[in-house]
Amino acid sequence: MAKDGSGNDSVAARRTPAGAAVLREDKTEAIRAAVFEELAAVGFARMSIEGIARRAGVGKTAVYRRWRSKLHLVLDVVSAVAAAGMPTPDTGSLHGDVRMLLEVAARALRHPMASQIIPDLLAEAARSPELASALKAALHDSQQGIAAAMVARAVERGEIPAGADGRLALDLLTGPLYWRLLVVRDEVPPGYLDELTAAVVSALGGR
Amino acid sequence: MAKDGSGNDSVAARRTPAGAAVLREDKTEAIRAAVFEELAAVGFARMSIEGIARRAGVGKTAVYRRWRSKLHLVLDVVSAVAAAGMPTPDTGSLHGDVRMLLEVAARALRHPMASQIIPDLLAEAARSPELASALKAALHDSQQGIAAAMVARAVERGEIPAGADGRLALDLLTGPLYWRLLVVRDEVPPGYLDELTAAVVSALGGR
Repeated sequence: MAKDGSGNDSVAARRTPAGAAVLREDKTEAIRAAVFEELAAVGFARMSIEGIARRAGVGKTAVYRRWRSKLHLVLDVVSAVAAAGMPTPDTGSLHGDVRMLLEVAARALRHPMASQIIPDLLAEAARSPELASALKAALHDSQQGIAAAMVARAVERGEIPAGADGRLALDLLTGPLYWRLLVVRDEVPPGYLDELTAAVVSALGGR
Repeated sequence: MAKDGSGNDSVAARRTPAGAAVLREDKTEAIRAAVFEELAAVGFARMSIEGIARRAGVGKTAVYRRWRSKLHLVLDVVSAVAAAGMPTPDTGSLHGDVRMLLEVAARALRHPMASQIIPDLLAEAARSPELASALKAALHDSQQGIAAAMVARAVERGEIPAGADGRLALDLLTGPLYWRLLVVRDEVPPGYLDELTAAVVSALGGR
């Protein structure tokens, strides 16, 4: 709970200068919002603590009191988004669950913020193992459980044979959309999500 | 054929200063190789014509005689790779064709050069429509025909119903692997390509 510093208390717990007052939550939130805006505007490499502080309307010290570096700040913000991320669908059918997850993923990846920030962080991740593992946690690990639970429920309902793989399910739910929206940078054409839903259900062994 | 300047003649045809001698092929190739190394080492944003020339062992003029900017040089190199890219498989079955394409894609995406350069160029593409459309051509358009032909042959053989979608086929062939290797930056575990092959065949309506 709040291990990513999503609440005032956990942030304070991580970095408590002797005799410090509780950190003001409104400032923390302003800084977080500023990080997204700076990332989208100038990218990770060019982003500075100074620019973030200016955008948030706080002093640089207010940032450093909460996070010790630009990397830690970004990791924290990315993790918080991931934790809030995907809902666990439970529509009563594999088809319904897959459709809902594809819808949510498409909306998230189409968001201008995501479509600028994710490629940027991934480029950095190719040179920063620490950022790579935070992104893996944010983009993948937090959703792996959701995919596995969806598959398990479909097996229980007898919709697909036992032994279907939650790992492969997640790759099929996210991969084609990620490829289309953030690599090819193309549209999701009308009817595409329906086709993809049917394809993923068949791929997992359903009809 | 060589429309991307992959041969000496086409490069000379594109940029022929009055009275210029034919451009030396060995220098052109040295520059191309240097571009890949510089991209992997420092990334697109930090890469300079000067650094490329130094690495290739040529003068800056030799680079500018062939390409008018860093962006054009990268676009040319990326297009040449894409054109050389995927083979057209014709194994006699949809299963065999899918397996072969997945194998080729996995090998290409796992290559250290690709895993550093592609994310980097995609980050730039989020801010450069020109680069975005060159990448789309390189990563997607040149392979769309291959996927469509594979699907058409499977329909002809009666392996899958008519109406199967080459567009979706390509997203399924590349998306999950791209996601796993270049986004999550995870391994391809043993047996994964077999599972994915079966999943893609089912997704396209085969057994």
